[in-house]
Amino acid sequence: MDYEKKELKKKSQSLSDWYTDVVLKAELADYGPVRGTMVIRPYGYAIWENVQAAFNKMMKNRKEGAIRNAYFPLFIPYSYLKREKEHVEGFSPELALVTIGGGEELKEPLVVRPTSETIMYEMYAKWIKSWRDLPVLINQWNNVVRWEKRTFLFLRTLEFLWQEGHTAHATEDEAIQIALEVLEWYRQIYEDYLALPVLVGIKSDSEKFAGAKSTWAVEALMPDGKALQGATSHNLGQNFAKAFNINFQDKDGDIKYVWQTSWGLSTRSLGGMFLSHGDDHGLIIPPKVAPFKVAILPIFGSRDEEILEYAKRVANEINNIEKSNYPGEVVIFDNKEISFGRRVNDAEIKGIPLKIEIGLKELEGETLTLSNRVEPSSKKEVPLAKIASFVEEELGNVQNLIFSRAKKFLEENITEVDSYDEFKRIMKTKRGFIKAYWCENSACESKIKEETKATTRVKLLSEKEGSGKCILCGKKARFKWIFAQSY
Amino acid sequence: MDYEKKELKKKSQSLSDWYTDVVLKAELADYGPVRGTMVIRPYGYAIWENVQAAFNKMMKNRKEGAIRNAYFPLFIPYSYLKREKEHVEGFSPELALVTIGGGEELKEPLVVRPTSETIMYEMYAKWIKSWRDLPVLINQWNNVVRWEKRTFLFLRTLEFLWQEGHTAHATEDEAIQIALEVLEWYRQIYEDYLALPVLVGIKSDSEKFAGAKSTWAVEALMPDGKALQGATSHNLGQNFAKAFNINFQDKDGDIKYVWQTSWGLSTRSLGGMFLSHGDDHGLIIPPKVAPFKVAILPIFGSRDEEILEYAKRVANEINNIEKSNYPGEVVIFDNKEISFGRRVNDAEIKGIPLKIEIGLKELEGETLTLSNRVEPSSKKEVPLAKIASFVEEELGNVQNLIFSRAKKFLEENITEVDSYDEFKRIMKTKRGFIKAYWCENSACESKIKEETKATTRVKLLSEKEGSGKCILCGKKARFKWIFAQSY
Repeated sequence: MDYEKKELKKKSQSLSDWYTDVVLKAELADYGPVRGTMVIRPYGYAIWENVQAAFNKMMKNRKEGAIRNAYFPLFIPYSYLKREKEHVEGFSPELALVTIGGGEELKEPLVVRPTSETIMYEMYAKWIKSWRDLPVLINQWNNVVRWEKRTFLFLRTLEFLWQEGHTAHATEDEAIQIALEVLEWYRQIYEDYLALPVLVGIKSDSEKFAGAKSTWAVEALMPDGKALQGATSHNLGQNFAKAFNINFQDKDGDIKYVWQTSWGLSTRSLGGMFLSHGDDHGLIIPPKVAPFKVAILPIFGSRDEEILEYAKRVANEINNIEKSNYPGEVVIFDNKEISFGRRVNDAEIKGIPLKIEIGLKELEGETLTLSNRVEPSSKKEVPLAKIASFVEEELGNVQNLIFSRAKKFLEENITEVDSYDEFKRIMKTKRGFIKAYWCENSACESKIKEETKATTRVKLLSEKEGSGKCILCGKKARFKWIFAQSY
Repeated sequence: MDYEKKELKKKSQSLSDWYTDVVLKAELADYGPVRGTMVIRPYGYAIWENVQAAFNKMMKNRKEGAIRNAYFPLFIPYSYLKREKEHVEGFSPELALVTIGGGEELKEPLVVRPTSETIMYEMYAKWIKSWRDLPVLINQWNNVVRWEKRTFLFLRTLEFLWQEGHTAHATEDEAIQIALEVLEWYRQIYEDYLALPVLVGIKSDSEKFAGAKSTWAVEALMPDGKALQGATSHNLGQNFAKAFNINFQDKDGDIKYVWQTSWGLSTRSLGGMFLSHGDDHGLIIPPKVAPFKVAILPIFGSRDEEILEYAKRVANEINNIEKSNYPGEVVIFDNKEISFGRRVNDAEIKGIPLKIEIGLKELEGETLTLSNRVEPSSKKEVPLAKIASFVEEELGNVQNLIFSRAKKFLEENITEVDSYDEFKRIMKTKRGFIKAYWCENSACESKIKEETKATTRVKLLSEKEGSGKCILCGKKARFKWIFAQSY
């Protein structure tokens, strides 16, 4: 906690100014010395650790076989990237290259990984020989570098943290199944942990991952009506298997190429969450990923020692609640040099879900004054004996409340349109997601993008085949697609 | 598990051949495509995750204030390294430099972090203004790159994983206190988790960290009599504070430089553990860090389905034991295509602490045949009803047994000498740690190194001042120091 008064820019006045301001002032992150880089400070990193723990659990508890963590090298020989044509075309403009090592010029530059398909699959080719070696189910948590010119804390940085999962299978069915299973985990991370509702679907050919056969994604909607691609899961088909010669002897004795998937979720997800839930007073962090669940604020004046003792007792009580659902700590804001009002502001800027005030009244009555970060009028008196169960219940309420507000916003901002004029009008005004028939011709897709800045985001998994006309060219179209401007 | 027979080189014949062979065959790690790099495979990475969990707990539960995780950028402007003279001299020969980003030549090359003092302290200078901002207690788990020419899996690699903790304090006393506290945690990680006894002490001036005022270390002894520097903790004094201008207004109103520490533990620690405990049959992984605690091996022949069902029941029973002491899984080796003998070999190569055999006899008698990886004659019959408590007890026994064997080896290989001839003779034969008076003149230190390859490792924390003669020059010496050849 800083000790000088922090005045926050207003979210209601400028989303992007507020966002940068709150990320810095809540001490989530700071700008790194190299342009485009970011320092993730302890408060921000603890949220990422909570996301990691949740996702690790999903991978480990997978019924058909755990996905296990591993670590592959940071440096990739440049020649590897070239082996899959679309892959190198997609990533070439964004590469960081090491050309000097140990004081000497290198014969071949090394790529600082922008993603690890190529280096991992070189190893997979070595490890996989028989159907008995399949499936290979590996994930890694690491840092990757993509040379971005414009940066935005968490949302777009030159280096970011993520997980990248890479599986290899004997059949395409099995590969698709796991790609979709992971997609569902991503939906859960967004909706159940980050409290951000998402649209789930498949990408168009032009929007899919460089080297993939198909890409699925979860897409969230930001307060300014722009979409944020939340996470992606790819069916790589046999593209990389052929480029890296990953084959195996099957049960029938034939030599076959494997079928592969890759999928990733990054620290960008936190940016989407910060941008969405906060308000003019600061961040709002959903309890399931909040580093601090409860802020206890002693009101000093008289009997300060007793009040502080009482605060510690309360913290101990609350720490008895089941941590597996709401990992995090209780924090006591007890610095007497900082005024009560200022400590309240600090807790609000940091978006701590619950706040407990303890003054003379509470001390004498063995009660507590509990309120939450989301509802301004949520203040209530709670007896000490019941505080643990109250807190647990209230954390659940706050988690649900944050999600349902975001869900309402999302639903209000999906517009089905059947005229291109309306499409253009919406993209100039409130934006949001537009649902419209599209003929799946990339010429129409790029013309729409050119004229409205909106791209296809996904075709929903739930989308049923229909019979309509392309929003642009009017030709026959079988499916409605989701369009939006995006981050 | 591979399905072809794995023949392992003998540890008793060649330590280094055996080591490389077992690391590859147990699937701990593999060579990366770029010379000097390493892939940490899931089985090896799970051990690192257990070490991380143990160390995170120590940092988080620290009574005087938790040390929290964060993340700082991979790329450091080259100019930053130059600010602390000794630091840049120490690291310059081993740097990897990024000179091209996003297709363009960079104006200033970026260093791929070999350690993060410089980039972190640039930020600390920005964040620290008042005594109220102190102490700063931050750790990060990340990857670092040091351009090594000779590599040895885990023990010396171009890129490795580690934690680096960096604290800043108002007083030097407080800094020294935390540096020593962390040193004790490192001792615990080595002795209580990796089951490797260590010597704990302070480094000589020539062996300390580039830029530190003093460095403490834990040193383990490998089976070939060479020392392995296990982890280091540095009192940085005000060297970096002055170079990066990290100052604060103290309570008395004066502007002062902070006092700093840094400290690190890397994946190298795993290499020391693998090298030490294994035998001709494979690895021996101490239960506290073992990814798999128990290998269940069904003996097939008749009533196979029932035997398999019984094996699963047993696994469930064992999973009831308290996981916080022995995190890890029970694994069932049930692939019928692999002979029983081969499956036993697999479990041994991987060093799984306990093995349970289940055949007809066990099925009919509702018993189990339990043995451990360390004692060849440890086989015993255990009733099913008691298996969980037996396993828990046996895991404790195995942990202790591995440690006490290593402790005995260490103790037998610390030789106190008072003649330089004996010093030289020992360094030519059994090696190990030598304890001898040294005058603390670096000329003697480097001459000893030149002639015997032995360097000063540490002066033990427990070392009392005495009155002796330097082992080399014969001049007055106050303390005995520990010498050894090292990895």
